[in-house]
Amino acid sequence: MTDASPTTVLSAERLHGSLGDPLMEVMNFLNEVTSRYPDAISFGPGRPYEGLFEVDRIGDYLDAYRRYLAEEAGHTPDEIRTLLFQYGRTNGQIHELVARALRNDEGIEADPRSLVVTVGCQEGMFLVLRALFADPADVLLVSSPCYVGITGAARLLDIETVHVPEGERGADPDALRETVAALRAAGKRPRAFYVVPDFSNPTGSCLPTADRRRLLEVAEEADLLLLEDNPYGFFTRTGTGLPTLKALDTRRRVIYLGSFAKTCFPGARVGYVIADQHVQAADGGRTLLADELSKIKGMVTVNTPALSQAVIGGMLLTHDFRLREANKPAADFYQENLAVLLDRLDTLLPRERREAAGISWNVPEGGFFLTLALPVAADNDLLEASAREHGVIWTPMNYFYPPGDGGRHQIRLSLSYLTPAQIAEGARRLVELLERSCL
Amino acid sequence: MTDASPTTVLSAERLHGSLGDPLMEVMNFLNEVTSRYPDAISFGPGRPYEGLFEVDRIGDYLDAYRRYLAEEAGHTPDEIRTLLFQYGRTNGQIHELVARALRNDEGIEADPRSLVVTVGCQEGMFLVLRALFADPADVLLVSSPCYVGITGAARLLDIETVHVPEGERGADPDALRETVAALRAAGKRPRAFYVVPDFSNPTGSCLPTADRRRLLEVAEEADLLLLEDNPYGFFTRTGTGLPTLKALDTRRRVIYLGSFAKTCFPGARVGYVIADQHVQAADGGRTLLADELSKIKGMVTVNTPALSQAVIGGMLLTHDFRLREANKPAADFYQENLAVLLDRLDTLLPRERREAAGISWNVPEGGFFLTLALPVAADNDLLEASAREHGVIWTPMNYFYPPGDGGRHQIRLSLSYLTPAQIAEGARRLVELLERSCL
Repeated sequence: MTDASPTTVLSAERLHGSLGDPLMEVMNFLNEVTSRYPDAISFGPGRPYEGLFEVDRIGDYLDAYRRYLAEEAGHTPDEIRTLLFQYGRTNGQIHELVARALRNDEGIEADPRSLVVTVGCQEGMFLVLRALFADPADVLLVSSPCYVGITGAARLLDIETVHVPEGERGADPDALRETVAALRAAGKRPRAFYVVPDFSNPTGSCLPTADRRRLLEVAEEADLLLLEDNPYGFFTRTGTGLPTLKALDTRRRVIYLGSFAKTCFPGARVGYVIADQHVQAADGGRTLLADELSKIKGMVTVNTPALSQAVIGGMLLTHDFRLREANKPAADFYQENLAVLLDRLDTLLPRERREAAGISWNVPEGGFFLTLALPVAADNDLLEASAREHGVIWTPMNYFYPPGDGGRHQIRLSLSYLTPAQIAEGARRLVELLERSCL
Repeated sequence: MTDASPTTVLSAERLHGSLGDPLMEVMNFLNEVTSRYPDAISFGPGRPYEGLFEVDRIGDYLDAYRRYLAEEAGHTPDEIRTLLFQYGRTNGQIHELVARALRNDEGIEADPRSLVVTVGCQEGMFLVLRALFADPADVLLVSSPCYVGITGAARLLDIETVHVPEGERGADPDALRETVAALRAAGKRPRAFYVVPDFSNPTGSCLPTADRRRLLEVAEEADLLLLEDNPYGFFTRTGTGLPTLKALDTRRRVIYLGSFAKTCFPGARVGYVIADQHVQAADGGRTLLADELSKIKGMVTVNTPALSQAVIGGMLLTHDFRLREANKPAADFYQENLAVLLDRLDTLLPRERREAAGISWNVPEGGFFLTLALPVAADNDLLEASAREHGVIWTPMNYFYPPGDGGRHQIRLSLSYLTPAQIAEGARRLVELLERSCL
């Protein structure tokens, strides 16, 4: 097995089709540009700010969880050793702690048995898709433009995905209803609708409460499940959050996809699913959807790593099951970044000037993202020029649409991973690019 | 969302077919019996012994990894924070450390770029299957009886699986060649062969070196990949290990599925894949199979949790990249258990008596498992009676075959999770069951 040996060569055409799909590579150009221009200011990554992470606290969180296991849960030292080192319960060991936080932070009353603790929200999406999609006629609907994690997971499973165009304020219940009707008429079986109601990735839009209620009505009428993904809901001004779909859901239409990547930290890779739907077997037996997801999870990752669960559990305990409050410094930081970005853009491109040029942007109330619309094509060529000549990087919005089918004149600006000073300088460079290309 | 609300009920028939497959539930009866008879001695679980785990060492391993990042890898404190907390490299951050251990422990020279660090070996299997299986005619071959993790993962992806019967000493190269030929003649495309050459789960057999070489020849002739899974290779008498298929592989026919579940600890959920095959695109470009697996992993778990990688990395550093040596106490423990089990069975059922009754067992050189053959059906009814009346639990071998198609008169005894005293008492109870049912 040295490099000089004759080598087995596999034909890419024989590998699974997803591997040749542009969708799976969509972020590569961005990553590649970023590595070629390391000094450019990047509005690219949707990563949380790192300045608030403290390496030395990992041990404290682990200790807090160990104390909980001993003192509150009443485990012996041997049982604690088993919980930390051994194979564990497939659906997780911190489900009760997560349920407590959901009650405080979201007003969601989740039965811990309906929770599946996953390797990041990504695994949660994957498990849900695998469970729900059985027939080639089954269709996943997504609010469009759409996060590539869900469309990519669907592609891995050969699930047909249909984009439902968003309006200015996010998912459009009427468009959803019409799309479902058209698909049914064509012999398809629309099964679920994926949506990020709070500060959507990529657009930053936030769905008004009335539209949330209408989405639930449409789902009920159309016998559709709603897959609600909510990584950014805490990152708004204190007291201004809207109820999640799951909090409004009186009929268990919503499968809630939760993430600790932004509210605790991404490296733990801990997320969860609330899957409280009942599943009726042909023999009359009933299970929870969470039990079905467990069977799938056993064949994907067996269980979520105990150490990751312990650290996240320790954080929940340390913050008294109030992550929204614990995230106030982070929320303030992102709010400040958002304010700086909006202020700089408005100052450098006053309303009359930008309107004359056909430049505009939305004004999100929170979250990590903002959408900027241009009169010229915001494609890889413009991105390359932007990085090379102006030292600023951003994400073409067309990455979040089916190839060639939308977002051609928009860019996504992510404000989560930069400092206010970098944001201000980045905005200056961005306007420099706009001066050159469309003013 | 309270229990009194009208509830969305999903029909099990509309869920993915895997969820109704007996394969996905095969271990349930065993788990359920175990929970109903908690005082029974269980030869069921293939878990590592826990007595050697030390909770207080977790912090030491984390520290060792942090020191490595700072002193050997030259990272700044900010970079270390990023590595531990942030989203990370999809294929992992401890790939170079794993490669060093593979060189020492297995004589495998793996380019770190060909390694994918996974959420347990289970995710590795899942990624490899997703990458390799594209067409409905593609068939996965497995050495039979077979670990349910691989057949379950295949079922999730609707991959057809064909069992290739093992001989006394494990996988049978001739049977493999014949099965491939028969499948090809039927228009199928055999793609890969899954095998555990060292102390197979479930049988405990260990494939002789000559047969390993013949498997590689058959794979080369038949243009088949070998999926080598090796969780138990270290657990033999010191100095008696055989070369892995990957160490003998001069043509990159072998995709090696590695696990730290038994050699470090299961709760970390860290495994890896060596995927050093070249992939040729239609446009002439080449990648490593590991790069293709990365695209899939990004849509399943994004990356393996950093903390888990840090602890395993710290263990590799602490043990100077020699896990085989570090596992000598564990190997000795399992060897002692194996010796006790074989001695007790032989004493309680002397050769003449057992031969007259049609009872026999294999004599593994190592590993976690032993196969016991009976003259009566070793099914769930016998297991239930065994647990209830004799206080001893084991795994029907038919769990590891297609339903109704093999292993009817065999049981798997796992010796890894018990103490020698429990093993001795368990053997006594087992013989009591045999006295009652077949002597």
